[in-house]
Amino acid sequence: MISTFPKSVTLIEVGPRDGLQTQEKYVPVDQKIALIERTIAAGIKRIQVTSFVHPRLVPQMADAEAVCARLPKQDDVQFNGLVLNERGLDRAHKAGLQHIDTGVPASETLSQKNANSSIAEGMQRMRVIVERAHAYGMSVRAGVQTAFGCVYEGAIPQERVVAMCEQFLAMGVDELTLADSAGLGNPLQMKQMLQTVLPLAGDVPVVLHLHDTRGMGIANMYVALECGVRHFDTSFGGLGGCPFIEGAKGNIATEDSVYMLDQLGIETGVDIAQVGAISRDLETFLGKELPAKLHHLA
Amino acid sequence: MISTFPKSVTLIEVGPRDGLQTQEKYVPVDQKIALIERTIAAGIKRIQVTSFVHPRLVPQMADAEAVCARLPKQDDVQFNGLVLNERGLDRAHKAGLQHIDTGVPASETLSQKNANSSIAEGMQRMRVIVERAHAYGMSVRAGVQTAFGCVYEGAIPQERVVAMCEQFLAMGVDELTLADSAGLGNPLQMKQMLQTVLPLAGDVPVVLHLHDTRGMGIANMYVALECGVRHFDTSFGGLGGCPFIEGAKGNIATEDSVYMLDQLGIETGVDIAQVGAISRDLETFLGKELPAKLHHLA
Repeated sequence: MISTFPKSVTLIEVGPRDGLQTQEKYVPVDQKIALIERTIAAGIKRIQVTSFVHPRLVPQMADAEAVCARLPKQDDVQFNGLVLNERGLDRAHKAGLQHIDTGVPASETLSQKNANSSIAEGMQRMRVIVERAHAYGMSVRAGVQTAFGCVYEGAIPQERVVAMCEQFLAMGVDELTLADSAGLGNPLQMKQMLQTVLPLAGDVPVVLHLHDTRGMGIANMYVALECGVRHFDTSFGGLGGCPFIEGAKGNIATEDSVYMLDQLGIETGVDIAQVGAISRDLETFLGKELPAKLHHLA
Repeated sequence: MISTFPKSVTLIEVGPRDGLQTQEKYVPVDQKIALIERTIAAGIKRIQVTSFVHPRLVPQMADAEAVCARLPKQDDVQFNGLVLNERGLDRAHKAGLQHIDTGVPASETLSQKNANSSIAEGMQRMRVIVERAHAYGMSVRAGVQTAFGCVYEGAIPQERVVAMCEQFLAMGVDELTLADSAGLGNPLQMKQMLQTVLPLAGDVPVVLHLHDTRGMGIANMYVALECGVRHFDTSFGGLGGCPFIEGAKGNIATEDSVYMLDQLGIETGVDIAQVGAISRDLETFLGKELPAKLHHLA
């Protein structure tokens, strides 16, 4: 494949949601808002600020409405919330969000565990959510979780992921997500998946959500850039984890991603030093070292 | 470039040298030998066991002779020692090693700091070392340190690195090393460098020595595999650091490298679970978390 790096890339900061949701120590609303404000100051224009899941399941996100009520008013910044069912969508709408992120695992086992439903039932739920969100005037990013492997089922057939992508595209999603939720993907698999999915998506942007659970995150991102992907979820400090895997690390780190993009001459508009400062302060607050590399140096 | 993954890859474990040399806590000879024995049991056939530098500069390696005296007798395992001058070479020879690793930085500043000499003087020293090592019947792996950037000088011109490689090849080195000592390299730069150096090296194996200081290590390794590189230095747990950069991480982690190679269907002969166990025990002994990912999971 000929390298066709994009000129610019959009990073979507998911630290406030995916990064914080597995932290034992509760981060108060004041501090969540401060994190979001610093993220914007660092040059990031898209932020996943919370998730609308049941407070009992994810206590860290029980303050979703309170966070949304205090988001800074900045027209050039897009805030989104994760929703996984109609109840969550209605909460996000009522909280004033205009953008949601949703998805279904490509693993039957995980689908049953997470949502007590089959993949097919999950996709039917997606149809309802996309339609209702669009009726609300919200944009919908939706896609396939555990698209590159599942800790319960192991390998996930690419055809299954591709079929789900086709269904999402048929629903009219505004953006399509491929998520390596378990960090099981490798660069060759990434290339093969993208060579199939990108042509199907056409003008619909494909967003990659990569976890660095096994250290493959940045390599997977590099290959995706070669394939022309322009949207990536990242988390300051590589903050995050996995409720199922002790010691597992989080999303690819925002600062390390920006370092590579800077080096490749791809614009992000993000100030790596400011992101590094956020991560160092989070380390102090959480009392633990974060897995990113650049925050030690920037 | 068409991907031409090698069928198998040789990992050279440098944890006992590059990993340990920056650790404040002294690791006794008994334990170094136990580490080396466990490395062999995990399936690794090449190990950098020590360095012959001045004990005052690197106290952790002051036991080089004692370590060499107690190396297991295994004909199918190749032990090498790092030497940077004739005195070190003579010590390595006297200690019974048959393989040495040496090199010169591509940075004038670092060359002056490390060896109080210019690059040209360093290359002259290399000529003497290669000739004398071959006269001793030793094999010599030699190459360019900080080939992908220097913390003092920043970018290093590729032409300078290539010229040094040509000189090393003319000396008749048995293997040529390209070292990203500062972890400043990016995958695009790696590809450009290898597309020039690999044809020059011809049948002389090119060994990559990658640091993960900025999180680019595994991505750089992936690109190098695409280019056909078959030899990599790695360190259990990603153990290591940099005396000049607080918080800087070490070499690419052996277990994470093996994970990617396994996933790509490239043979290593290395048992990832055994490497992970070594790293976990090292974490306990050193009292700190190591940056690798897989040792948490394997």
